[in-house]
Amino acid sequence: MTYTERLAAIRQQMKEQGVSAYIIPSADPHISEYLPDRYKCIYFASGFTGSAGTLVITEDFAGLWTDARYFVQANEQLAGSGFELVKLLIQHNPEYIGWLAGRLQPGEVVAYDAKLISVGLAQLLEQQLAPLGIKLATDLDFLDPIWEDRPELPTAPAFLLDEETTGKPTTEKLADLRAALKKARADYHLISSLDDLAWLFNMRGSDVKCNPVVLGFALISQQEVMLFVDAAKLSEVDKQELQQAGVTLKPYEEVEQVLAELPVHSSIFIDPKRNCYALYKQLPAEVRVIQETNPTTFFKAVKNEVEIKNTRDAMVKDGVVLTRFFKWLEENVANGGITEIAVADKVRGFRAEQEGFVGESFDTIAGYKAHGALPHYKATPESDVELKADGLFLLDSGGQYRTGTTDITRVVSLGNLTEAEKTDYTLVLKGMIDGATARFPKGTRGYQIDAITRKPLWDHARNYGHGTGHGVGFFLNVHEGPQVFNPTPIPVDIELGMITSVEPGIYRPEQYGIRIENLVLTVLDEANDFGEFYTFEQLTLALIDTAPVKKQLLEERQIQWLNGYNQLVVEKLGPHLTAEELGWLKEKAKAI
Amino acid sequence: MTYTERLAAIRQQMKEQGVSAYIIPSADPHISEYLPDRYKCIYFASGFTGSAGTLVITEDFAGLWTDARYFVQANEQLAGSGFELVKLLIQHNPEYIGWLAGRLQPGEVVAYDAKLISVGLAQLLEQQLAPLGIKLATDLDFLDPIWEDRPELPTAPAFLLDEETTGKPTTEKLADLRAALKKARADYHLISSLDDLAWLFNMRGSDVKCNPVVLGFALISQQEVMLFVDAAKLSEVDKQELQQAGVTLKPYEEVEQVLAELPVHSSIFIDPKRNCYALYKQLPAEVRVIQETNPTTFFKAVKNEVEIKNTRDAMVKDGVVLTRFFKWLEENVANGGITEIAVADKVRGFRAEQEGFVGESFDTIAGYKAHGALPHYKATPESDVELKADGLFLLDSGGQYRTGTTDITRVVSLGNLTEAEKTDYTLVLKGMIDGATARFPKGTRGYQIDAITRKPLWDHARNYGHGTGHGVGFFLNVHEGPQVFNPTPIPVDIELGMITSVEPGIYRPEQYGIRIENLVLTVLDEANDFGEFYTFEQLTLALIDTAPVKKQLLEERQIQWLNGYNQLVVEKLGPHLTAEELGWLKEKAKAI
Repeated sequence: MTYTERLAAIRQQMKEQGVSAYIIPSADPHISEYLPDRYKCIYFASGFTGSAGTLVITEDFAGLWTDARYFVQANEQLAGSGFELVKLLIQHNPEYIGWLAGRLQPGEVVAYDAKLISVGLAQLLEQQLAPLGIKLATDLDFLDPIWEDRPELPTAPAFLLDEETTGKPTTEKLADLRAALKKARADYHLISSLDDLAWLFNMRGSDVKCNPVVLGFALISQQEVMLFVDAAKLSEVDKQELQQAGVTLKPYEEVEQVLAELPVHSSIFIDPKRNCYALYKQLPAEVRVIQETNPTTFFKAVKNEVEIKNTRDAMVKDGVVLTRFFKWLEENVANGGITEIAVADKVRGFRAEQEGFVGESFDTIAGYKAHGALPHYKATPESDVELKADGLFLLDSGGQYRTGTTDITRVVSLGNLTEAEKTDYTLVLKGMIDGATARFPKGTRGYQIDAITRKPLWDHARNYGHGTGHGVGFFLNVHEGPQVFNPTPIPVDIELGMITSVEPGIYRPEQYGIRIENLVLTVLDEANDFGEFYTFEQLTLALIDTAPVKKQLLEERQIQWLNGYNQLVVEKLGPHLTAEELGWLKEKAKAI
Repeated sequence: MTYTERLAAIRQQMKEQGVSAYIIPSADPHISEYLPDRYKCIYFASGFTGSAGTLVITEDFAGLWTDARYFVQANEQLAGSGFELVKLLIQHNPEYIGWLAGRLQPGEVVAYDAKLISVGLAQLLEQQLAPLGIKLATDLDFLDPIWEDRPELPTAPAFLLDEETTGKPTTEKLADLRAALKKARADYHLISSLDDLAWLFNMRGSDVKCNPVVLGFALISQQEVMLFVDAAKLSEVDKQELQQAGVTLKPYEEVEQVLAELPVHSSIFIDPKRNCYALYKQLPAEVRVIQETNPTTFFKAVKNEVEIKNTRDAMVKDGVVLTRFFKWLEENVANGGITEIAVADKVRGFRAEQEGFVGESFDTIAGYKAHGALPHYKATPESDVELKADGLFLLDSGGQYRTGTTDITRVVSLGNLTEAEKTDYTLVLKGMIDGATARFPKGTRGYQIDAITRKPLWDHARNYGHGTGHGVGFFLNVHEGPQVFNPTPIPVDIELGMITSVEPGIYRPEQYGIRIENLVLTVLDEANDFGEFYTFEQLTLALIDTAPVKKQLLEERQIQWLNGYNQLVVEKLGPHLTAEELGWLKEKAKAI
């Protein structure tokens, strides 16, 4: 079936069921960002492979709403699919709701599959469309009937981590969670989000590519903990350990029924952004629902001392990998034959040599010249190009180690840079330095760090269409909430112990792209009459190329930071490098 | 009656009515910030005179929740009143709701007077307290029975402004408003906010001190416009003009009844933040309520060309006033006898000499040394001190002119500054320059400008407890929404034509306070591949004292801006000054 045939088949079902608009979000019943193959619905329907977007289909229009990171990619991948790109003004904003509101008439029906829509989004659709007389049909899956060989749910093995790795046993995490539930006056708590489950049960797996999570749900009360997973994924030892922690294992599918049978007049705590509407609808009407962010989301974001120590270890390993790779690239690029895919393979190879390496934390983005301008570019055999000793090369990659998750972007000069390239590189670097060295009072939020990071770019009338940074898990998802550094007004304080990326960029379509990214840890700076001030420790340890830097554009404090940071990289990585590697790194790290 | 007697009398009524907690907000039925005397309930009950705060009274506790601007003032004014200061973490945040939630038991009753609570706040109380089983009694006024000689509503005259002043007649403003209502599918629109009314009807008055507004409500539909005001305030000519614009005058009190009689199944557009809950409750249950920000709030914030031209004229006048005053102060301070109250009188006198001056736009804040550390200080006979040729003096004042509203803060050295004072002054100036010269993409919000303004202070581990800036009206309220520059995540874009203040500060309790404030106009800067960039035009024209500046703390671009700005002040004010005044100003404005 071609994409246009699939679209026609969806429209046929819409017509039969009297549906005017059908919404296909990028989600699964856990409202994940990265999806098991079974739930790659947008890819199935349209061919688009990006990790964020929503399809909306009407009788005479089919659109993919996605953000600036994916504009170029979407235009290419949607060609001939029958879908058109609709550019989101704001990342993750459901702007198609306004579009539907302006287009549909009272009495018309908007449909979706409640398994793929968060409780919050379902409520928003209801709030915005119902007053206009537009109806919502929430149980229609128009893909399943036309999806031949739809993949089954994954069955990859899962395993538990020990306390030396996680710093805190599940029993203690459960005690903290139960205290939070008591405070919220909640009898029950449903967790569907896979990273929260992985953290709470110190459990990892590989059900989702690059995300070491295990498909499951948990229902927690003061008396009981039910974990709904495919028990076949766990070893007997691990099952016993969970049992000893008071956890009852139940089949994955049973969660619906258990929710439907909750005692009336009980209360349940549900995160509206991280549970699907299909489960919410199972609750008896008399159950009082408390809608708040999962307590585990906040607990998990604040890394404990053991996690921090382990993460620092992972960062040294990743720094060694990057050093080896960029040395190899510099020495071999002129010989020819190094393509973007070869680069990704090489980087993966260097990571695989490191002890404790489990896999990549996301698909490597290796973008040479114009491909660097696609913030989420992944080289395919069709797009793959050979690197030459000329222009800018962007590498954004990361690893899952048993001691932590990494995510790093560096751009290097392969030779012959233009003044414009150097200027843009230096401005991105200024932004990255200002963000990653920010000092700020306790209570500061991500949107404030975002503004500080963007200022050096704004001063020169430049900007980037993605967020400045995202939270990062501990041997968990590379995108982890609740904190983000982006312009949207999310009222989440930046807490001590959080790990977040700082990654401003400048993209010149069809020319080049620049992004420089460090992961940073929030640490205490000083306390005085004005309160407590926090700042960031640089976790990422990898050389920042000084070759493209225009020194006169940097302020003195930025020059000092850059030289000091590259020197720190030399010191921390030195003991793990060969003499030849260290010599190369020292030369590269020379003060400007 | 003493304050403690009043508190006892309130508690007596609470006991009789079975009320566990009573809330007294700072508001009137128009949810105004500045109140007619009749609604100065917090002052009546506790003696606190600040413009923001909430009293909450229980059987065993009576507190004033207010923000950092008022901590010192509240501590002084509440002494012996029976009320304690509760420090708000975030300005205007109803943090007492959480306090009540944690303290009250199911079945207990929280009461307030629905005339003084916005629709939004009433809904928030309901949302947060009702699930805990706490009940709300919304029609209890415990002040009126004990308030002897409570002031009547004001009866000051009102008048209409001509098109040369406002740039847009009421008929056109009504047409824009009706288009917005049609788009929102609203049959009716209730406006209670006095600044929106003043703008829409090009009407001004003096019902509230410093705010040239007229008490009233308006109900607008596609067919009709009812304006509920005391018609005796208007001249016959103005009444006829309103009539010709299609406006029907109705008695102020009749609004409740008209709302109660709205057709069932009609819809009404109501701003939940700017209408009181008492009016909302009048609506028949079948009326569909659309809750959004008043369209007039957005219209009014974007000044038209005539308003901008007129405002620039008012700024020149105000600059002349400030020049005269600071020259006078410098020449006379050593002679003695100049107190803070004398300063306020002198400044008012200089403003009164200017053509078109109507009154002050707020109570002058003249704070010498330690008094400067109280951001909203107003000198009283008890607090008044004499200025000497020593230390820092802060003056924050503004005027209502028929051509615009001004608001300006300057700090000057009267002599013998310490290094610490100079450092703090220079850091505030850096913040003010970075905020007031920011370049930013279209779509930027106030919290981003706020972060940019604070960064130079944060870099040196300093901060201030108030917002960075507020919108300013055109010959209207000196605090005007929807935009603010503050850390709270308010999703309002900064639009071309908006006028906003930029006023960072550093406060050293019992030592000194520094705040430097300009009003700025959003203007287009440039458009390029990255979109449209905006920046600010400095509307305020008054010398920034360079005597306290530590040049080495400023960046080169900041030095250039400071010298250029002071030169601009000389150029713009020169034609309106005497030769002697101009000579003094030129000397002061010399480049550093």
